Amino acid sequence: MTHPLRLHPDRLFPADPDTRAVARRLHAEIKDLPIVSPHGHTDPSWFALNQNWKNPAELLITPDHYVFRMLYSQGVALEDLGVPRADGGPVETDPRAIWRRFAERYHLFRGTPSRMWHDWVYAEVFGLDVRLSAETADHYYDVIDAALKTEAFRPRALFERYGIEVIATTEGPLDDLAHHRTIRDSGWSGKVVTAYRPDPVMDPDFEGFHDNLVRFGALTGEDVGSWQGYLAAHRTRRAVFAAHGATSTDHGHPTAFTADLPQDQAAALYERVATGPVSATDAELFRGQMLTEMARMSLDDGLVMQIHPGSFRNHNGTVFTRFGRDKGADIPTRTDYVSALKPLLDAVGSEPGLTIILFTLDETAYSRELAPLAGHYPALRLGPPWWFHDSPEGMRRFREQVTETAGFYNTVGFNDDTRAFLSIPARHDVARRIDTGFLARLVVEHRIEEDEAHELARALTYDLVKAAYRL
Amino acid sequence: MTHPLRLHPDRLFPADPDTRAVARRLHAEIKDLPIVSPHGHTDPSWFALNQNWKNPAELLITPDHYVFRMLYSQGVALEDLGVPRADGGPVETDPRAIWRRFAERYHLFRGTPSRMWHDWVYAEVFGLDVRLSAETADHYYDVIDAALKTEAFRPRALFERYGIEVIATTEGPLDDLAHHRTIRDSGWSGKVVTAYRPDPVMDPDFEGFHDNLVRFGALTGEDVGSWQGYLAAHRTRRAVFAAHGATSTDHGHPTAFTADLPQDQAAALYERVATGPVSATDAELFRGQMLTEMARMSLDDGLVMQIHPGSFRNHNGTVFTRFGRDKGADIPTRTDYVSALKPLLDAVGSEPGLTIILFTLDETAYSRELAPLAGHYPALRLGPPWWFHDSPEGMRRFREQVTETAGFYNTVGFNDDTRAFLSIPARHDVARRIDTGFLARLVVEHRIEEDEAHELARALTYDLVKAAYRL
Amino acid sequence: MTHPLRLHPDRLFPADPDTRAVARRLHAEIKDLPIVSPHGHTDPSWFALNQNWKNPAELLITPDHYVFRMLYSQGVALEDLGVPRADGGPVETDPRAIWRRFAERYHLFRGTPSRMWHDWVYAEVFGLDVRLSAETADHYYDVIDAALKTEAFRPRALFERYGIEVIATTEGPLDDLAHHRTIRDSGWSGKVVTAYRPDPVMDPDFEGFHDNLVRFGALTGEDVGSWQGYLAAHRTRRAVFAAHGATSTDHGHPTAFTADLPQDQAAALYERVATGPVSATDAELFRGQMLTEMARMSLDDGLVMQIHPGSFRNHNGTVFTRFGRDKGADIPTRTDYVSALKPLLDAVGSEPGLTIILFTLDETAYSRELAPLAGHYPALRLGPPWWFHDSPEGMRRFREQVTETAGFYNTVGFNDDTRAFLSIPARHDVARRIDTGFLARLVVEHRIEEDEAHELARALTYDLVKAAYRL
Repeated sequence: MTHPLRLHPDRLFPADPDTRAVARRLHAEIKDLPIVSPHGHTDPSWFALNQNWKNPAELLITPDHYVFRMLYSQGVALEDLGVPRADGGPVETDPRAIWRRFAERYHLFRGTPSRMWHDWVYAEVFGLDVRLSAETADHYYDVIDAALKTEAFRPRALFERYGIEVIATTEGPLDDLAHHRTIRDSGWSGKVVTAYRPDPVMDPDFEGFHDNLVRFGALTGEDVGSWQGYLAAHRTRRAVFAAHGATSTDHGHPTAFTADLPQDQAAALYERVATGPVSATDAELFRGQMLTEMARMSLDDGLVMQIHPGSFRNHNGTVFTRFGRDKGADIPTRTDYVSALKPLLDAVGSEPGLTIILFTLDETAYSRELAPLAGHYPALRLGPPWWFHDSPEGMRRFREQVTETAGFYNTVGFNDDTRAFLSIPARHDVARRIDTGFLARLVVEHRIEEDEAHELARALTYDLVKAAYRL
Repeated sequence: MTHPLRLHPDRLFPADPDTRAVARRLHAEIKDLPIVSPHGHTDPSWFALNQNWKNPAELLITPDHYVFRMLYSQGVALEDLGVPRADGGPVETDPRAIWRRFAERYHLFRGTPSRMWHDWVYAEVFGLDVRLSAETADHYYDVIDAALKTEAFRPRALFERYGIEVIATTEGPLDDLAHHRTIRDSGWSGKVVTAYRPDPVMDPDFEGFHDNLVRFGALTGEDVGSWQGYLAAHRTRRAVFAAHGATSTDHGHPTAFTADLPQDQAAALYERVATGPVSATDAELFRGQMLTEMARMSLDDGLVMQIHPGSFRNHNGTVFTRFGRDKGADIPTRTDYVSALKPLLDAVGSEPGLTIILFTLDETAYSRELAPLAGHYPALRLGPPWWFHDSPEGMRRFREQVTETAGFYNTVGFNDDTRAFLSIPARHDVARRIDTGFLARLVVEHRIEEDEAHELARALTYDLVKAAYRL
Repeated sequence: MTHPLRLHPDRLFPADPDTRAVARRLHAEIKDLPIVSPHGHTDPSWFALNQNWKNPAELLITPDHYVFRMLYSQGVALEDLGVPRADGGPVETDPRAIWRRFAERYHLFRGTPSRMWHDWVYAEVFGLDVRLSAETADHYYDVIDAALKTEAFRPRALFERYGIEVIATTEGPLDDLAHHRTIRDSGWSGKVVTAYRPDPVMDPDFEGFHDNLVRFGALTGEDVGSWQGYLAAHRTRRAVFAAHGATSTDHGHPTAFTADLPQDQAAALYERVATGPVSATDAELFRGQMLTEMARMSLDDGLVMQIHPGSFRNHNGTVFTRFGRDKGADIPTRTDYVSALKPLLDAVGSEPGLTIILFTLDETAYSRELAPLAGHYPALRLGPPWWFHDSPEGMRRFREQVTETAGFYNTVGFNDDTRAFLSIPARHDVARRIDTGFLARLVVEHRIEEDEAHELARALTYDLVKAAYRL
């Protein structure tokens, strides 16, 4: 038995009829605003080369860690989803077989945002009108596969169809940004910018850190054997990234720890981490010191700083050994911001010309730490709910726990933060609906007036994003 | 002035009329499903001996820590509730006097689940139709006392009236399981199974730990002087428990800490804890090591593992000295799962044939740690809200904070987890109402379709319980 | 374009019409109950001297840390709001200029409680009927400034107009309480009592601690060179405070840590902290010891004890250097209660004659620690949501997370906790609306009956406050 697939126009709005009516009015005014995607992980080669994606599984399943972590949790081997093994051993190569495995377990995603994102893609992008299931798996595969072979489903065509005003990708400091140059030089009107993510040369625990430093020196022509040369190399690369459209940096540290050592101590620390085996203490201290250095550089060059702390990466030793990193086994950890950020904030937190956007995987920090910090420090803004919390309930909790202390204007609108390009509008759609639903509740509870809610809806969707990210 | 006692058919459903209508439809389909109670603390002697309970106070007040902790918090001496003193000193022995003390303070329970559980018992089981209060105390006492003397209110009769398909009790490894054998051999159709709770021989801080080890060896015929013999004794008892219907083990540790030492180090650790005074470090390390050993045994014998961490037991020194353990003075503590469980998960977490059910008293772990862990590791499932959180708001928070990351299918339905036998259907009733109310909200917000909600309602009530607990 | 300013009669009630109808009925019965304000920071000189406030900025902006922290977070210099510099350097002195800066940024407060408190003051106290904005700034200034010059807007007149039955201020142990005596001796009927906040002589990290001790000895005539003399000095001042109406003490420690050392060790500790530089460890130990000593004194003299832990004071080093303490830069921190309070609770927690009211800035403690503690210990009660959480969503979370375990009767009603005298009724209004809205939901979900909700609404608004604070 098959079921219809429907995207209800009232989806995600609060159930109460008065509130829903206000939400509908608010949403109607902002639903067609262009998408501004200031932070994400799409592949710039898509827009540079504009080639067709290969097949439904390669596009929608194998790279989506939300999807394969859930399937894995319910006993599906990663090999059976085509996830490559570290040892090059055999894995499933038939995309239709992979698709079927996903389709017959689609019920596992009930109640998750993946379900909403996927349904949006199926209905809106591919025009499917039955629900995905074991029975409809082949129909889906055939429809999607056929579409992907057409001109209209190439990356640039979808970019335009999606109404994307600008999208940021994320590159490491050693990336040559060739795809961004290709895009820029191609004459295509789509705006794709990069962002500077220096973890590979800033985190001593990053794989290949010492080799990366050597390449960093070679690429910049700076003497990275010295602290001053190392800092200069960052300044050089930041300028190159800015020239490729970057308006932001991004930092994915295990904690939010920062330090602000005297420069001679910082130089000595750098010498230790750059030359030999690095102790855990030195690694953390160096990451912390570098956040403060990055903030100081941001004061100079105007790049907005993003801090994404608190993920225990590659938690599953078995999966890490067999498949390598980034296989859906990152787990959030309890994260302190108050003590951790104090050195950085004492150094630059009171600068109104600086913007540092904080993210969290630990929702307990919203009302206790992040809203009070962002509601005081001129340099701080709060990023939207991130990763596991990029979801209807997660977004509701964010607004409920942050707004009363930090207000709306210390937040920065939505990030889709995804490599799943096809679902980008679906993700913005969820955010727009949840935010207008939240605003509608404030209106119906007479906490703000409807004219204000209209202004706020636009701010959360568009104005604050462009202002915070200087786009 | 007395007030009517009413169990409204819409109780606990969301207020919004559309949502409530969906909740009613969902609930109607599952409300009469049999009760599967896979984890709890009822006394097997009730079902073995099938004797009448003695009086209302002994049945409904003195053993209910939810009740006496609240009364104690408002200045009622535990002696006045008949709680036995450690020194054998005098306490209240008149059950009617105890009952009156409770009745005249029944307003203290407004807004608590105890109120809902008790009202259900009064209305549904005893047919009372006025609210409990000082004025109605004697009427209540008389009605309940009279009923308890009848055949229809013996344990087996209520078991059948309640529609219990199966109930699990919890026994220590030194328990002779005689009552379970009596039940099995009695020809009675009721299914009562045990569960293996080895804390008395696994937790060096448990009272009488060293004596317990001696008895453990005697009972199993294994040489518990050696690590291998000690492990063999566990295997032996697990097999005996399984033969008495057990499908699960249960572990009530102060933290979720686990370890996976090399076997020679584990053997040395065991030698230390088995023979002399045990340091706090060794005690924690041994508990942690044994969780991993238990998980490995579960891989072999198929017993489902339950971990209930995070309670600071017997927090009140004054009460502990005067009345002993388990007197309503256990307090939850902040609990880490991410680092704590890594050794165990690296050892066996990727095994799809293993089931480990995690519980928490620290709700902050739901969205930050537990849902991400259970949404990845094949061996992990999330137990329902536990103890202080086994309540309408607690259940709502659980679904709201867990579902988007772990989905519904990494959860295991409801546990009543109680020794208060009379209220077992009341507790399942609360869970069924909250779950269908939550599903109704998802339907009205167009996040799932109603046909899916019906399937989920049945899964959460029945299917997932039986599957997860292998019942 | 200007917008009307409206205080909707249904503001803050739940949107659902049935629930809202119940909330209206509950609220109608309690909205006119007198204000009992058992904990706050109004200046007793206002009521002693009864002078007109000077101007709108001095009354409503410069002293309101909620207001200036938000403006500062959005780039307004504290100097431009008239906040005095530590070095006496120039700051804005034109109150109209300050007012305009606030007015043109009033949209920043959308969704915050400050907005609701201010709107209430504007509409109810000053009769303004347009929304504050850049355009209406001067109109506001003129209306408010004119009113403030009149008899009807002096402190005592507003006290009476506001229906305040009793208000508590907070004074340090070195305060001479002259204003309280003036009020008492003036023949004015307003009841203004003090509260004993001994941090300046109890917290070795308090500015001037050693000098304060000297003054403490001089003021009391006790030999504060000895532990016994120091304790006696506290007893003396507590008696004096009680004679000035105090029924409570208040303790604002960085953590909830308590200790209960043998008296000889306590005496040795006191000798160390009283005489020389104090280590961080000794400072924390002394604060912790003194909480237990204060609790023992409360057992004797009946003063209710309030503990307000968990604020990282003066987090912003730049602001602290430039402007000094209490400039909106206090940030909450993660706070443990379970281990921290055990020494104190073992000493006196089981005393039903003692009342200790716990507050938190860490909402994660509500369901995990505070409700279980207060739902057990006879001496414990839970204070209302505090500071950043004194807000509609904060109050909802408090009731939702606390009630099921601690009930309503282990809570103590509302504290406005403010120095912003004009908004005191607005703050009580928010609490009354949120509490009746919460009760209405329980009624509509058939968890309590409406007659009980009426009784509870009155208890939360009035009865529990007076009982808990012995007023």
